[in-house]
Amino acid sequence: MMMTNSETLRVDLNDRSYDIIVGANLIPNAGEHIPQFVKRDPAIIVTDVNVAELHLENIVKSLQEANITSKTILLPAGENTKSYEGFCELLNDILDTGIERRSCLIALGGGVIGDITGFAASVLLRGIDFIQIPTTLLAQVDSSVGGKTGINTQHGKNLVGSFYQPRLVLADTTVLDTLPRRELLAGYSEIVKYGLLGDRPFFEWLEENGHSLIEGDEELRRKAIVTSCSAKASIVAQDEKESGSRALLNLGHTFGHALEAETGFGDKLLHGEAVSIGMTMAFDLSARMGLCSTEDAARVRKHLNVVGLPVDPTNIAGQSWKCDALLSHMAKDKKVRDGKMTFILPRGIGDSFITSDVDLALVEAMLDDAIAA
Amino acid sequence: MMMTNSETLRVDLNDRSYDIIVGANLIPNAGEHIPQFVKRDPAIIVTDVNVAELHLENIVKSLQEANITSKTILLPAGENTKSYEGFCELLNDILDTGIERRSCLIALGGGVIGDITGFAASVLLRGIDFIQIPTTLLAQVDSSVGGKTGINTQHGKNLVGSFYQPRLVLADTTVLDTLPRRELLAGYSEIVKYGLLGDRPFFEWLEENGHSLIEGDEELRRKAIVTSCSAKASIVAQDEKESGSRALLNLGHTFGHALEAETGFGDKLLHGEAVSIGMTMAFDLSARMGLCSTEDAARVRKHLNVVGLPVDPTNIAGQSWKCDALLSHMAKDKKVRDGKMTFILPRGIGDSFITSDVDLALVEAMLDDAIAA
Repeated sequence: MMMTNSETLRVDLNDRSYDIIVGANLIPNAGEHIPQFVKRDPAIIVTDVNVAELHLENIVKSLQEANITSKTILLPAGENTKSYEGFCELLNDILDTGIERRSCLIALGGGVIGDITGFAASVLLRGIDFIQIPTTLLAQVDSSVGGKTGINTQHGKNLVGSFYQPRLVLADTTVLDTLPRRELLAGYSEIVKYGLLGDRPFFEWLEENGHSLIEGDEELRRKAIVTSCSAKASIVAQDEKESGSRALLNLGHTFGHALEAETGFGDKLLHGEAVSIGMTMAFDLSARMGLCSTEDAARVRKHLNVVGLPVDPTNIAGQSWKCDALLSHMAKDKKVRDGKMTFILPRGIGDSFITSDVDLALVEAMLDDAIAA
Repeated sequence: MMMTNSETLRVDLNDRSYDIIVGANLIPNAGEHIPQFVKRDPAIIVTDVNVAELHLENIVKSLQEANITSKTILLPAGENTKSYEGFCELLNDILDTGIERRSCLIALGGGVIGDITGFAASVLLRGIDFIQIPTTLLAQVDSSVGGKTGINTQHGKNLVGSFYQPRLVLADTTVLDTLPRRELLAGYSEIVKYGLLGDRPFFEWLEENGHSLIEGDEELRRKAIVTSCSAKASIVAQDEKESGSRALLNLGHTFGHALEAETGFGDKLLHGEAVSIGMTMAFDLSARMGLCSTEDAARVRKHLNVVGLPVDPTNIAGQSWKCDALLSHMAKDKKVRDGKMTFILPRGIGDSFITSDVDLALVEAMLDDAIAA
């Protein structure tokens, strides 16, 4: 057995509280952490074909050593799996294994796998347990914390889903070495978000250490993931069902989702990349409204750009944009209330707030400039 | 406006508590009770074609008088609507109306409409409000209380769903006059269940008053519905997620579901009819095990039979039964734990308990006798 070097973070949600364990080599040592949560054999591992190739054998072997049998359900890789069809097929595949109420699902993969598996766990037999083993940086710092699950419909992303907490999250920093650099950067974008929305010193630490972290420093990665997860966990603990302050986590996401919708939620623009552009836009809009300094807006844009993330829609080759189309996507956002769009805007780096008091003419002007840039 | 004569029952579930209002003419006066729960126009009414013909105009008009606009989604009548396809279509239809998080669904109909609409409410935008207006006796005393929602899959009934509470239940006793007698009786079967599982005096009251209640006495109906709902509400309050005592509510249901599965969940055998046979079987099995007196078992069988409910599988014309098939359905029940079936068995009328300590040979013998009878 390999040595593990890990840190544990508790997400405090009463009877739905759970631990996030962050560290090296957690997957090949899964059998140390998981057995207490598998009240009934076999554990059902849901993963995608790409992740399976890299990590499935390791986890299955470690579970076997801990006397846990498992069955695996392989899904196609990619966002298209998060459809009605993909979801109903997954439910049937899981039911085929003969689950009971005490059965446990293990989501092994990125955000797509976590979202669809968590949603399946929430509705199978009206709710069974699940464990998240996020294998992308994005999933480790974002989708594996906070219990949002869901699938996409023709009307938009994640419009159908549930709030449902995992029993345990294992964030294995070693698996990040197998990620394509572009995906690693997309995850890094969400890490930057935590600095921007509420923790200026963390943003400054990222300006200092972001490069080494991306290049592979395991200690720095662990610190960034733990800091991000604990920022998210503390916001989620205050507002599990997103009736208020949790919306802060959507900094950059209203714009980002609109950009993703236009590019078809695919490889052309990854979620984290869209969030990078979206955060740049939020700072730009805020500066135009006189809420935040142009210096801070420029500093955000610079850091994202320096590490290699896109900051302008025009960075996306071969994509043309229309302001109207983007606005129309934004109007369909889940945060719309009485027809008014909600924005997460910064007063500066490390200080964001929620408002629906925004002059849409300024939003249009900002978008027009951004897509013409 | 017509006079209403109603009683209100509170289901106590912390921040998910809600009222059940039981009384005459509640639908044509819906506008008196609903507006506070519709935080955003329009209210989305989900109903089926049969119910719409009888009651839709009344509710829409009453809402209009209370300045609430509404949109209606019409589903086909019948259990087949509770499929993956029916569910995904409903989600799309609701999303088409442009809902937001503060939107509210109104389920106007029987158990199918309540189950599928409640499930839709629980997953749309990760959870929006809904109101239950059950139009069958069965739905009024059973499916509208307790927050179980769900759809059927090829593996069984209600295997996919959620625990999700409505904001309000309006049980209009006047609409029961429009029910076919067979459906009324099917609902009465669940009323008898509450007497059998925990309230002997109520069962005796039903022996006395069941006939007049079925024939249309509004006062007796209200009393029976309120007694049933409050029995269920108090069990649900103790065990919302069915980890223990809530399973008592399944008296007669393990057998009943197996019978329904064999008849295809259709008109051949209504749910309440299956429960009537299932309760008779539970008392028969219990008497064979020496747990309950043969007198009580005979008395239950007699009352159900006297009011016109089926008590033997052989009462179902043109259906042949196989013991193995029934047992195999029972083995797939959601209450199965570590492969052991759970039974709700009576010690006598008004005193039931949960056990998995049952000799399957006795179950087989009872079933063999029942299907040969």
